[in-house]
Amino acid sequence: MALIRSAFQDELDGVSQSLVDLTNMVSESIVKSSKALLSADLKLAEEVIATDVKIDDYQHELDARIIDIIARQQPVASDLRALITALRMSADLERMGDLAHHIAKVARLRHPNSAIPADLVLAFTEMGHVAEKLATKVATVITTRDTDMALQVEKDDDEMDELHKKVIIGITNGGAGITIESAIDLTLLGRYYERFADHAVAVARRVYFLVKGEFPQ
Amino acid sequence: MALIRSAFQDELDGVSQSLVDLTNMVSESIVKSSKALLSADLKLAEEVIATDVKIDDYQHELDARIIDIIARQQPVASDLRALITALRMSADLERMGDLAHHIAKVARLRHPNSAIPADLVLAFTEMGHVAEKLATKVATVITTRDTDMALQVEKDDDEMDELHKKVIIGITNGGAGITIESAIDLTLLGRYYERFADHAVAVARRVYFLVKGEFPQ
Repeated sequence: MALIRSAFQDELDGVSQSLVDLTNMVSESIVKSSKALLSADLKLAEEVIATDVKIDDYQHELDARIIDIIARQQPVASDLRALITALRMSADLERMGDLAHHIAKVARLRHPNSAIPADLVLAFTEMGHVAEKLATKVATVITTRDTDMALQVEKDDDEMDELHKKVIIGITNGGAGITIESAIDLTLLGRYYERFADHAVAVARRVYFLVKGEFPQ
Repeated sequence: MALIRSAFQDELDGVSQSLVDLTNMVSESIVKSSKALLSADLKLAEEVIATDVKIDDYQHELDARIIDIIARQQPVASDLRALITALRMSADLERMGDLAHHIAKVARLRHPNSAIPADLVLAFTEMGHVAEKLATKVATVITTRDTDMALQVEKDDDEMDELHKKVIIGITNGGAGITIESAIDLTLLGRYYERFADHAVAVARRVYFLVKGEFPQ
């Protein structure tokens, strides 16, 4: 019995490790797509676009494995909750990958120009940094189940929301430098970063719930 | 044994009915938010905003029930797959409710003005109609498991994508009638309708998968 339990624990640890791997893939995508966006780097944008399929495949394989574990092990209570939560986290992470992919597609669409006007380079650079920080912390939260760090992810999201507001104000007050076409791009890009952060928060909150039995606040 | 099986079947049917109820709530929200948007109707916008909490609560209750069924009944194979899929559908439906809520919030923000300039009233009216059609079909697909209708939902989504392109072109070519602020609103609104349709397609595809064992195409 101890042996079976241990094999099951190994499977749960494997799921957790796969979620971290998925987070790292997403983290790499958002770093690359942010760089592609700011430096109008077509090659880097193409790399992110190509990687998105790998992220999707990785998620599907992971989800199939989780469902197989539920079917075979028939877990109850906290183990079942952890596996269902893992499915939700994988969905959030896959969506974060999609959003990095969307950002890369805007960079590709506007190449050889940059989609970001000079006045907004700083704000988008910061958005990229906050997104990277969020992804890095999410990987640590999944590994360590550190609930304090899960709460930090929410704080970092407040930072993203502030940057997002700054971007909207920057677009609105951009004057002659902002065309309508550019306003459309920038509105969508701001939205993609904001949603990326929202999903990072969702993952962190799910880990918090698993540990504490309730959502923060 | 036949009795136990039947009780379980009742539970599965109950989940299916709850998904339909959730779809109907979302359908009502998108109809109301579209009307609020086009007629700058503050009262209707407030109604949608107030209803969003009810949709969220309904989803949480449903998810808890699904997880409880998995824990108690320990289903395998197709029954487990149906229950996991129900969890994913409820997440899609809840998100559709959020998007209707976002649309209502833009309507409220711009009240007593309308967020939609005269040139784009027709396109947004059509987007509202397509969104309603999608939600209505999704409810039928969940009830009947009609895979032909699931495929129709994908076709309707193509219609939404065309309307979305029309909106983007309308914003870009809007001339003097479109301010930068208005371009931001319209870009986000277009995105909300597009995402609403994407989630409707996701629900229809999941039903298709349950019936056919593979995704369409």
